[in-house]
Amino acid sequence: MFDIATTSNPELEASLRKKIDSKTKPIGSLGILEDLAFKMGCIQNTEIPKIELPTIAIFAGDHGIAAKGEVNPFPQEVTSQMVYNFINGGAAINVFSKTNGLNLEIIDAGVNHTFPKDSNIVNAKMAFGTKNYQYEPAMSLGQCKEALKKGSDIVEKIHDKGSNTIGFGEMGIGNTSSASLLMAYFTNTPIATCVGSGTGLNKEGIGKKAQILSEVSEKYTPKTPLDALSTFGGFEIAMLCGSILKASSLKMCIVIDGFIVTSALLAAKAINENVMDYCVFAHNSNEQGHVKMLDFLNVKPILSLGLRLGEGTGAALAIPLLRASVNFLNDMASFESAGVSNEI
Amino acid sequence: MFDIATTSNPELEASLRKKIDSKTKPIGSLGILEDLAFKMGCIQNTEIPKIELPTIAIFAGDHGIAAKGEVNPFPQEVTSQMVYNFINGGAAINVFSKTNGLNLEIIDAGVNHTFPKDSNIVNAKMAFGTKNYQYEPAMSLGQCKEALKKGSDIVEKIHDKGSNTIGFGEMGIGNTSSASLLMAYFTNTPIATCVGSGTGLNKEGIGKKAQILSEVSEKYTPKTPLDALSTFGGFEIAMLCGSILKASSLKMCIVIDGFIVTSALLAAKAINENVMDYCVFAHNSNEQGHVKMLDFLNVKPILSLGLRLGEGTGAALAIPLLRASVNFLNDMASFESAGVSNEI
Repeated sequence: MFDIATTSNPELEASLRKKIDSKTKPIGSLGILEDLAFKMGCIQNTEIPKIELPTIAIFAGDHGIAAKGEVNPFPQEVTSQMVYNFINGGAAINVFSKTNGLNLEIIDAGVNHTFPKDSNIVNAKMAFGTKNYQYEPAMSLGQCKEALKKGSDIVEKIHDKGSNTIGFGEMGIGNTSSASLLMAYFTNTPIATCVGSGTGLNKEGIGKKAQILSEVSEKYTPKTPLDALSTFGGFEIAMLCGSILKASSLKMCIVIDGFIVTSALLAAKAINENVMDYCVFAHNSNEQGHVKMLDFLNVKPILSLGLRLGEGTGAALAIPLLRASVNFLNDMASFESAGVSNEI
Repeated sequence: MFDIATTSNPELEASLRKKIDSKTKPIGSLGILEDLAFKMGCIQNTEIPKIELPTIAIFAGDHGIAAKGEVNPFPQEVTSQMVYNFINGGAAINVFSKTNGLNLEIIDAGVNHTFPKDSNIVNAKMAFGTKNYQYEPAMSLGQCKEALKKGSDIVEKIHDKGSNTIGFGEMGIGNTSSASLLMAYFTNTPIATCVGSGTGLNKEGIGKKAQILSEVSEKYTPKTPLDALSTFGGFEIAMLCGSILKASSLKMCIVIDGFIVTSALLAAKAINENVMDYCVFAHNSNEQGHVKMLDFLNVKPILSLGLRLGEGTGAALAIPLLRASVNFLNDMASFESAGVSNEI
């Protein structure tokens, strides 16, 4: 379905390492930025990587389980209200995208609301929210495949506009529950460890959420990654999964945001391991499962700001550091060119 | 000498907290950015803080002890070579300042070299490097006071140009030794705990450095903060100390960089505790003493990127996050204005 090449190229890797070490700084002294510069070079298969039209794509969708309000402190209507907020430029992701010069695309993956036709939003609606997985799978396997394809098509369009760097975000009241279920499935972790406060549950609320999701988790035995994705949803997560797969096949740099986007990556990685070659990790979220996801993936996030907002805010905030890493690789003087002594 | 007001203002603090919590996001979900927005508001005594002409000021100076090459893997000449690199735009701090839209000022605080008169550099030279504190104090008390004054004057000029946000950086082969000695003095920590690899010493080198600095530390018993600053130097650190004091008195936001700049802050804080009200902490450096300095100050850094370069690079990389924090405070919609439900 997706043809994703590994970035492995020992010759380029050696020359990138040499180039980084020739810069006028003690070896290794730019820390994570050196790793990022190296990775960007590998992804773009060049010693002079560039960031073009960096874009944040936010996928929004509603969740069957959220209608009951048992796992989510905010009511389901907040999903569509927040999408209007995105459209009107008032959300955190709007502000951060503007601050950091990022292109922003908002996608209706399956919100329980009909937006006006002239809204500045990509209409990829699968349905008015998923089914409640307490009773039946969130979506059919056919819907899941369609969502993957829609995500893939959206990323292709963004790529066609000239973007080579994409950060993903999401909005969907109830979607930390989906992400927790997917985490439990793909990382083989007890569900209680995967459940956190979401948009602000207290201890009692978290306990109740864990109890409900534990029952859901036991109810199903998905056989394949797509099975799991269909069962636990949501539409925005399935679309994110397709987007990640497509962005990798297009050799874009993918900036992974928080808990929900990482759950989509877990599914994408189970489908094709090579996606990891194209991902950088923006931050570790304060949603408790996220750090464990990152540990499972054996990756190190760029930022640790105590965020737990989603929307792609962590990705938007990390892109200036990605930009700094590419720029130092391209624009810093070498010891030789600057006439700086590096005999130690 | 410096008139520094506390930013404490309970009424404003309450209204800032209310404004932050009214934004369309779960309470606290922007983590450290909420703290930064709050602090910027307090510093500027307003609910609508702004970042104007953000500037990085790098102070460069040479160190008597470095001439012998016992504590520094790079030769002393690298200080002046790197200053030329700053002038020519080839260093990491040039790249990061350009990437993030920052004004950059380079100051010769006491480099062992005469730069051409038409160099794009502020000439505040105190001498051609400090004395070697293995034998005598790095500078006289009179010189120390003069360096403070020069730093203060430089910051005043930057402020007069319209800057209200300043990050400090430094360059000086051997200056982690000064910073270690100052850390030991001001935080009352055994010198061995304060000594790290600097620009790249190995374990044996660190041991030798610790031994030498231990002897230096025992040789003197400074009675006052200025005594300690004079004894252990360097000129760039004394100038940084004066700069921090002046920037605070001008109610500028001060972005503290790594190990050396923080050592200057330790001295400034010992002179006037209120400087802390104006400081944000860019990152924790990989120089081992830095985390302990931050713990001593009871502050939390914004970034943790494994940097150990100095030059103000951490400050330059943190400023986009400061910008994002101010922008969300000013530009995000509130629950009320966006019509988003916040009943939990």
